[in-house]
Amino acid sequence: MRLRVYFTPGEVHAGDLRGTSAAVVDAVRATSSIVEAIANGARAVHPAVTVGEAVRLRAELAEDGERPLLCGERGGIRPGGFDLGNSPAEFTPPAVGGRRLVMTTTNGTRAFAAAVGADRVLAASFLNRSAVADAVRGDRAVAVVCAGRKGRFALDDAVCAGHVVRAVIERAAAPVTLDDGATAARDLAGRYGVSGEMLAGTAAGRALVEAGLGADLALCASADRRQIVPMMYDRVITVPRG
Amino acid sequence: MRLRVYFTPGEVHAGDLRGTSAAVVDAVRATSSIVEAIANGARAVHPAVTVGEAVRLRAELAEDGERPLLCGERGGIRPGGFDLGNSPAEFTPPAVGGRRLVMTTTNGTRAFAAAVGADRVLAASFLNRSAVADAVRGDRAVAVVCAGRKGRFALDDAVCAGHVVRAVIERAAAPVTLDDGATAARDLAGRYGVSGEMLAGTAAGRALVEAGLGADLALCASADRRQIVPMMYDRVITVPRG
Repeated sequence: MRLRVYFTPGEVHAGDLRGTSAAVVDAVRATSSIVEAIANGARAVHPAVTVGEAVRLRAELAEDGERPLLCGERGGIRPGGFDLGNSPAEFTPPAVGGRRLVMTTTNGTRAFAAAVGADRVLAASFLNRSAVADAVRGDRAVAVVCAGRKGRFALDDAVCAGHVVRAVIERAAAPVTLDDGATAARDLAGRYGVSGEMLAGTAAGRALVEAGLGADLALCASADRRQIVPMMYDRVITVPRG
Repeated sequence: MRLRVYFTPGEVHAGDLRGTSAAVVDAVRATSSIVEAIANGARAVHPAVTVGEAVRLRAELAEDGERPLLCGERGGIRPGGFDLGNSPAEFTPPAVGGRRLVMTTTNGTRAFAAAVGADRVLAASFLNRSAVADAVRGDRAVAVVCAGRKGRFALDDAVCAGHVVRAVIERAAAPVTLDDGATAARDLAGRYGVSGEMLAGTAAGRALVEAGLGADLALCASADRRQIVPMMYDRVITVPRG
């Protein structure tokens, strides 16, 4: 298996992800929120890059008879008129059960946009790290695409990517070839455990604490809390349901 | 002091480097070659992003009565018509003494282009790691700009950046604030020593070995071999000479 890590969406070039399963990571907080939402019964998450695109998408879905929830953040904060922000704890069964969500976040939804050329796109976080590794176990090429922060390297995502890399290696039947990014992510994951304190030491974590949302960090660091792997089908993130 | 590391030129946004000393790193091999060239008596290195730009620049300099040398690589190999490639060992006193060099490399010269907005731009490598740290000691904001590899994270540059970060921290009189990139680079440098074997395990190192140029790696890993810090003045890299 070929295993790569991209630390920012900008590192992904057109065609890079052909033949590849791409696990998108925005540990603090978008992919954590997506995992919680789907685990708690949301039917699907529709990522939108801009607030305007999110508002239009909600209107389109409403025309089809849906009652979609608008959720996400700008600068960490829920925009006016949005139903939910981007705290994983908001996506409870009563809040999201049976609903479609339109989500726009500063960094996370751009990473899904960058991953569109992959054969499969998975939502990965500390919450479902092992489930993601199980899902890609037999694949020939796997890439972790980190959302990063404002186009730059983000330590929370890099450490999360590294924990995914380690979980993938543990399960591998055949030898795994790591690129430079996967090697570095694996090493950083070895240096850092998974904890809210670790996340609080990253730029994303510090910004969240300053915004009064530091309580989210412990939830974002809850390793293997969920066994689901949301996947993107035709730009909609969901899981196969019975 | 604020200390940042950018792992790719693409992470640098316009205005980021204002008020900042930027150390450009392309450990394998451009900044190693620049340090060797200047240490061995080259008057200056003129970076050019494309081969065409390099050829034009040589012609312009020749019109001014210079006898500039054209050097660099594409895919690791010296282009036809070039005087020198990009092996640090080529830049000997007989080859470069008293000469101006026009240099174009796949990744390194792009990093210098990205750093143009900085207050000072320095050429950094394992060869002059401590000298670079001495040079920025009193600065308020320092950034390491890694060349990366084809727009992506490169482990050789990240480890070199981390060794620069460690050397800067060792010398700091005031507290040093690290961003996520500098934190990760510092940790990776702690994981990896400086050696040709380490470089041979990176993507850049493997490509060099495959091109039959693996002998360059030991020289690129010669920590603190040189005490000079080439700096870019008006897009020309040189050192003040008496």
